[in-house]
Amino acid sequence: MQLTSENIVTFLLSISLMLLSAKLLGELFNKIGQPAVVGEIVAGIILGPTIFGSLLPYSFNWLFPQNNGVKVALDGIVNLAVILLLLVSGLEVDLSVVVKEGKTAFLTGIMGIIIPFALGFTGAYFFPHLLGIKDDNLKLAFALFMGIALSISALPVIVKTLMDLGIFKTEIGYIIVAAAMFNDIVGWLIFSVILSMIGANNHGLTFNQTLILLITFTLFVLLILRKIINKIIPWIQKNLNFPGGVLNFILILGFLSAAFTEYIGIHAIFGSFIMGIAIGDSVHIKEKTKEIIQQFITNIFAPLFFVSIGLTVNFITNFNFLIVAVILIFAFFGKVIGCGIGARFAGLNKNDSLAIGFGMNSRGAMEIILGILAFQYGLIHANVFVALVIMALVTSVSSAPFMKYFLKARESLLNILSPNLVLFTNFTDKNEVIRELVNQVSKNSKLNSDEIYREVIERENSSPTGIANYLAIPHARVDISRSAIAIAINKKGINFEASDGTPSRIIFLLLTPKSKNELQLKLLVEIVNKFKDKQIVEQLLLSSNTTDFMSMLKHS
Amino acid sequence: MQLTSENIVTFLLSISLMLLSAKLLGELFNKIGQPAVVGEIVAGIILGPTIFGSLLPYSFNWLFPQNNGVKVALDGIVNLAVILLLLVSGLEVDLSVVVKEGKTAFLTGIMGIIIPFALGFTGAYFFPHLLGIKDDNLKLAFALFMGIALSISALPVIVKTLMDLGIFKTEIGYIIVAAAMFNDIVGWLIFSVILSMIGANNHGLTFNQTLILLITFTLFVLLILRKIINKIIPWIQKNLNFPGGVLNFILILGFLSAAFTEYIGIHAIFGSFIMGIAIGDSVHIKEKTKEIIQQFITNIFAPLFFVSIGLTVNFITNFNFLIVAVILIFAFFGKVIGCGIGARFAGLNKNDSLAIGFGMNSRGAMEIILGILAFQYGLIHANVFVALVIMALVTSVSSAPFMKYFLKARESLLNILSPNLVLFTNFTDKNEVIRELVNQVSKNSKLNSDEIYREVIERENSSPTGIANYLAIPHARVDISRSAIAIAINKKGINFEASDGTPSRIIFLLLTPKSKNELQLKLLVEIVNKFKDKQIVEQLLLSSNTTDFMSMLKHS
Repeated sequence: MQLTSENIVTFLLSISLMLLSAKLLGELFNKIGQPAVVGEIVAGIILGPTIFGSLLPYSFNWLFPQNNGVKVALDGIVNLAVILLLLVSGLEVDLSVVVKEGKTAFLTGIMGIIIPFALGFTGAYFFPHLLGIKDDNLKLAFALFMGIALSISALPVIVKTLMDLGIFKTEIGYIIVAAAMFNDIVGWLIFSVILSMIGANNHGLTFNQTLILLITFTLFVLLILRKIINKIIPWIQKNLNFPGGVLNFILILGFLSAAFTEYIGIHAIFGSFIMGIAIGDSVHIKEKTKEIIQQFITNIFAPLFFVSIGLTVNFITNFNFLIVAVILIFAFFGKVIGCGIGARFAGLNKNDSLAIGFGMNSRGAMEIILGILAFQYGLIHANVFVALVIMALVTSVSSAPFMKYFLKARESLLNILSPNLVLFTNFTDKNEVIRELVNQVSKNSKLNSDEIYREVIERENSSPTGIANYLAIPHARVDISRSAIAIAINKKGINFEASDGTPSRIIFLLLTPKSKNELQLKLLVEIVNKFKDKQIVEQLLLSSNTTDFMSMLKHS
Repeated sequence: MQLTSENIVTFLLSISLMLLSAKLLGELFNKIGQPAVVGEIVAGIILGPTIFGSLLPYSFNWLFPQNNGVKVALDGIVNLAVILLLLVSGLEVDLSVVVKEGKTAFLTGIMGIIIPFALGFTGAYFFPHLLGIKDDNLKLAFALFMGIALSISALPVIVKTLMDLGIFKTEIGYIIVAAAMFNDIVGWLIFSVILSMIGANNHGLTFNQTLILLITFTLFVLLILRKIINKIIPWIQKNLNFPGGVLNFILILGFLSAAFTEYIGIHAIFGSFIMGIAIGDSVHIKEKTKEIIQQFITNIFAPLFFVSIGLTVNFITNFNFLIVAVILIFAFFGKVIGCGIGARFAGLNKNDSLAIGFGMNSRGAMEIILGILAFQYGLIHANVFVALVIMALVTSVSSAPFMKYFLKARESLLNILSPNLVLFTNFTDKNEVIRELVNQVSKNSKLNSDEIYREVIERENSSPTGIANYLAIPHARVDISRSAIAIAINKKGINFEASDGTPSRIIFLLLTPKSKNELQLKLLVEIVNKFKDKQIVEQLLLSSNTTDFMSMLKHS
């Protein structure tokens, strides 16, 4: 079996069209304030059987043939694409933060399974015909499947949404990713049980064996292999050509790890994601290497994957309103409430908990992969499959706007900052700069500037706030309702008695409400983390006006 | 048709193994002074039916199955890989230089077809059984095929070899690439005739139609579309996200162009190559964009393609000594002598002509693609196919060493320079620096330093040699047998009266033999071209010792 010349022409045209439509719709959705990934999925629906396939069935079947080599070749690329996307996402994860968020992630993840699973299982077990069961003999398997179908989440879509929203590397982002990983691993474990119940090939592994292999493998990669990788990378960078050697190394490890998890019955993407985390944790990986991988994968491979989702079915002809409505309602309530309760248990406030709930609500690709498998094995009807896909899309598409809504209330560095509170100063004395910053804040919010100034200076005198990387963060807890941050930039530097002896060039005035105890510490940590890379600070110092500064800050 | 979970495991393992073996052998061959591409092809033979497949047939067939989706998916990736490789190569081509070398390229290309084609056609027509004809009724087609099989060259292997040798962007490099393009386009045109003789599907296009479409398309892309692209790129960079927008744009255009040439019966790689040239010609393409594409493609995709060549057949069991010997001898003599004569006609010297001949001799992948098609259509026996593949490999593998040998005699900047003629100077007076450089050269080659100094100063006084980008090139034609170049670096700069008013920081003393008229101009041009990018000079000035400087110079 080999691709014919005819096949190759079709293959190239279909990839071009997928890339083009993904780019166009992705940028369009970006312009209207939606994450690009939603546009990419919509591009697939337009390009798929639903619209293009209905209007021009002959052209559609020629461009996306279902029964020849082109389909398989595309399938190969799409599989690589999603595996690579998760590898890149893994590279970006800061393991220490995930561990720190472990408790919240666990509670969120486990509740995000229990509630939707209970809803789905109970509903399907007691009203199987309402939910479109196909074979009454498989009622238990069907009920288990509906439980899993409602509780699984879609790590690739979630990760991309978080990246598009710019909150992937924040506390909330890490909680969601860690919870989604946990959620999905449990989900796939249960699904592997269902597969063995309906006679699918699972390499003869029992549930226990899969579970033990998975845990052993994950611990091995994250605890032992991670350290070995960290030792090998400098050797590769020294002895093999750069960055070619490291690029190869990263992809080979990612593919091998993906092959392993796929083999034991957990989807391949978990393997590449875990390996990505282990590799990304190494301090020796150069920014350049990461950038090459990330740009190529997020711009070329990822869109191919997201477009491909819409290419599978016709969403109109297989549409059954009742099934769609029930599944949608169960899915939203189950997941948002489940995860929300989990996050609340872990001590988060209402808005953050709901943001997490909606963040976890994306079902995207995973749901569709599950659905395709269940459909192929005769467990569900086509209309259930379509309902699952629609649910997957609606949950994915609605995730970003809901998250945005609930995150707006969040007092984070970027939410608080406003351009008119960023100023380039000529003062070289710290008291004068603090005075200038306080005045600027007071002007905006009509506060008692003298009192604030006194509080800040008092705090500053008791222990100076100059720190490494040219930063200083004078701060105080004062009588305001919402936190305020003002920034002064002085390229020559002002003496804030930083421990490394260098003058401070970016001065953050941080004022938090007296009523919110932990907020000051949280924002201090956020500022320090955001600027822990000296290069970022040096980049920022190159900006010559407020607009540049804010735009750089947002993207660093 | 879809990849099963089993398929995906195999697919990931085979890709990992291909990347790993390519990297290992590629680096190994690099260390022993061979181009990496040779190591990558050898990796394929080891991994293919010849060695791994013979020793462990069960494992081999499991890892590289011939008759299921994995084969097709790999085929899809490999096809994309070679198309992308040629797209990247196209981006690197300087169109103006190719046009300048047009005459030489044309003569080299056409003679590189006529001689081997005549040899192959005559041999196969009069001794068909010696060369293993399969069906006597197809004698004309068979003879035409053998002619083409001997005269085709392999653009991807040639380009990679030139890159590995570091001469892709030189005069010789451009002549070879332009000639190979011309050669291959003619070759594929004739091959499309053969295919129609033996009844292959060629979309019903006649030879004339293919020819007209190809010429029209090439002219359209290079003359009109090139200018449109140059207008569109700044718009994309401004309005879409960077570098994602441009990355997408480049790949989409490359794939579409590849689809077009494949459709009209010329291989897909020509389309992507031509489009690459048109895109790369734009001054707006940022270095960063090029680097991301180039690093990802040359390090990930290209090795997959080169490894895949060795995976097709067992080179031992299908080995027929007589056929192999005849084809090898015909191939070497035909191509090296043909191209060599062409280059000589165009006025090149013997060594350069032979270097070009051997540069054009690589048959690599193209031969194998031709061979596979002819084999599938029943035109040739398996042993002829194997002989063609062996010939392809021997010609590809021997290309670099022979080229290196004949290029050694060439008086080019990098060949002439030696580390002990690079010095960091403290002198700030131009006469003193020239004196120092002349002394250094004389010490090495026992020349009359006073006379040389006088000649250089005389030339310098009549017209100062300071030019833009901090360079100065004092020079003279003197009584020596081989050219000499010495370099002085002074980071503060010395006044050589450059027209832009800046002091010169890198001073080249260039001495050429009186007997070789044109050499001085040639080397002057080479130096100016090498440093026409100010960034390169600034990079070089950061080096703090001779080793760093030489290594940067080689790689810039």
